[in-house]
Amino acid sequence: MKWVESVPNFSEGKNVEVLEKIVKCAEKYDRVWIVNWSMDKDHNRSVVTMVGEPSQVIEALYDMTKTAANSIDLRNHRGEHPRMGATDVIPLIPLKNIDYTECIDFSKQLAQKIGEELKIPVYLYEKSATRTERKNLATIRKGQFEGFSEKIQNEKWKPDFGPTDAIHPSAGVVAVGVREFLIAYNVNLATDNLDIANDIAKMVRHKSGGFRYVKAMGVELKEKGIVQVSMNLTNFKKTSIYRVFEMIKVEAKRYGVGVIGSEIVGLVPLQAITDTIDYYLGLDAFDMNRVIEYQLMEILEKE
Amino acid sequence: MKWVESVPNFSEGKNVEVLEKIVKCAEKYDRVWIVNWSMDKDHNRSVVTMVGEPSQVIEALYDMTKTAANSIDLRNHRGEHPRMGATDVIPLIPLKNIDYTECIDFSKQLAQKIGEELKIPVYLYEKSATRTERKNLATIRKGQFEGFSEKIQNEKWKPDFGPTDAIHPSAGVVAVGVREFLIAYNVNLATDNLDIANDIAKMVRHKSGGFRYVKAMGVELKEKGIVQVSMNLTNFKKTSIYRVFEMIKVEAKRYGVGVIGSEIVGLVPLQAITDTIDYYLGLDAFDMNRVIEYQLMEILEKE
Repeated sequence: MKWVESVPNFSEGKNVEVLEKIVKCAEKYDRVWIVNWSMDKDHNRSVVTMVGEPSQVIEALYDMTKTAANSIDLRNHRGEHPRMGATDVIPLIPLKNIDYTECIDFSKQLAQKIGEELKIPVYLYEKSATRTERKNLATIRKGQFEGFSEKIQNEKWKPDFGPTDAIHPSAGVVAVGVREFLIAYNVNLATDNLDIANDIAKMVRHKSGGFRYVKAMGVELKEKGIVQVSMNLTNFKKTSIYRVFEMIKVEAKRYGVGVIGSEIVGLVPLQAITDTIDYYLGLDAFDMNRVIEYQLMEILEKE
Repeated sequence: MKWVESVPNFSEGKNVEVLEKIVKCAEKYDRVWIVNWSMDKDHNRSVVTMVGEPSQVIEALYDMTKTAANSIDLRNHRGEHPRMGATDVIPLIPLKNIDYTECIDFSKQLAQKIGEELKIPVYLYEKSATRTERKNLATIRKGQFEGFSEKIQNEKWKPDFGPTDAIHPSAGVVAVGVREFLIAYNVNLATDNLDIANDIAKMVRHKSGGFRYVKAMGVELKEKGIVQVSMNLTNFKKTSIYRVFEMIKVEAKRYGVGVIGSEIVGLVPLQAITDTIDYYLGLDAFDMNRVIEYQLMEILEKE
C-alpha cells in the first residue's frame, strides 16, 4: 500500500467541539487513520496528524476543509500564530511506497476540488508550488487573513485554484502542497520577555544567519507566563533537533535566562529521535534498525 | 499473531562463518525473522536477535543450538565475557499478544528438546526458573564452563533437563528462560585501567548499592586499548539508560577519566529511546505514540 501523511492546521485552538467535528470527517474512510491531534490555546490553532492511502487521504482532507469552513470564522479569530484561513495549510508528505511526483499529483487534485467546490482560493506551496515565490509558506501567508483581500488583487498573488478576485469571506484562503517531513519544535524559556525569544529565534534561523533548515520566531505563551522559540525544522536529517536545542541553550545564557524544556508538536520520524539519542549517549553506529518496533513495522509491511 | 523475541548468545565472536551457519538455521521458518546479529571479538561472543511466532521461534532456536554444539568447542574458548556453553543462554521475551505464562510454556518445550535430543544439560532461569537460586543467570553461570563438570555433581545444581551427571564435553551447558526485555548497554572509558571500570561498575550496580535494575562489570577491550563498564539493564522502565549513563559520567570524574561514548548491543525497545530523548530535551508529555513508525506498526498490526 502507498502511504502518505498529512498534517492539516486549523485556526481553532480553544473549542474542542469544533475540532472533534473536523476530525470525525476521517471516520468514514477505511484507509485513513488519525494518529494525533493537539490544540494550542495561545496559538489558537490545532494540528491534526493523519496517515493513510493517498486517494482516501485527500478525500478526507476535502471533507475536513469543508467542515472547518463552516465552523471557523476568521473574522473573529485572534491567536499568536500567523494564519490566513480556517484551514490554514494542508501539507502532504510521502511516507512509504510513493514518490514526490505522485504525491504532488494528489496535492493538485485536492487543491482543485477545494477551489472549485468550496470556493476557497488555494495556493500550491513547497514542492507543489507553481512559482518560485510560492515555495515558502511564510511568503504566501504574509499579510495574513486580514491583508489577503487586498493581496489577492495583485496579479502576482492570484491563487492556483478557486476564486481569483476575492477570499472566502469567513474561511480566507488555504495553502496545499507536498513537502519534506517537518518537525514543529518549540523551546521554552524561563522568562516572559518576548524580545529575548525573538532575538534567539533570529540567531538560530536560516533567514538571519542561523541553521540552514530552521524557521523560527518568538512566541508569547500568556497562559504559562513564558515565551518560547517556536520553530519549524524543515530538514531534520541535515539540521538535527539536538543541535538546535543545544544552540538555544548557549544563546539563552547570554541573557541569563534558563531553558525550561522543549516540545515536539505532532508526530516525529524515528530517525530524528535516534539521531538525538546518538548524540547525547555518544552511541556508535546506532540507527533505527536497532529499534524493535521499527523492525516489527518493516516485517508487517512486507507481509 | 503472537510475537516473541529471542536473543541467543553464542560463544564465538571471531569466526564469521560459524555465526553465518548458526543464523542460517532460521531461514527455513517463514514466521521467524533474524533482525540483528553482532560479533564481539574481545568478548569472543555473538548476540543474535530474532522475532517471530513462538512455536516456530523455538524450533529455529533448537536448530541453532544444535549447529552451535557442532561448531563451537568451549575447551578452546577464551574471551572477556563469562560463559558456560557453546550456546550460552537463550532468553525468550514476550513482545505482542502473548503473556508470560504462555511464553514460559514455550521456553520449557525448548529446554526439554535441547536436553533430551542434544544431550546438553539445560538450566531454566529468570521467570522460567524452577528454584529461586536459578532466577539469576550469573548465579547459574558461576564457575563457568571450566567449573561446571564439578558443579553439576552438586545436588543443588542438577539441571532441569538433559544429562544430570556430566556436561556436554564441548558445548557445556545452556540456560533457557523467559525474562523482561533486557538492554545490553556498555559505557566506554578513556583509560585502559580495568580497576577503574570495575570500581564504577560496583557503584552503579544493584548488588553493591547502585541502581535496582543494573548488573555491571568492568571489561577490558584489548583491541581498542580501553576499558568499559559492561551492563545489563534488566528493567529499562524503572532504571533508564540516561540515568545510568549520566551517573557513570559523574563517577568517572573522580578518576579524572573521560567517557568516550556508549553502545547498545542488539535491539532496544522504542520506549527506552523516547524516555532518553525526553530527559535530554526536557520534553513534556512525549511518548512513543508520537513516533510515526510506531503508529504505522500499530496500524499494520491491527489489519
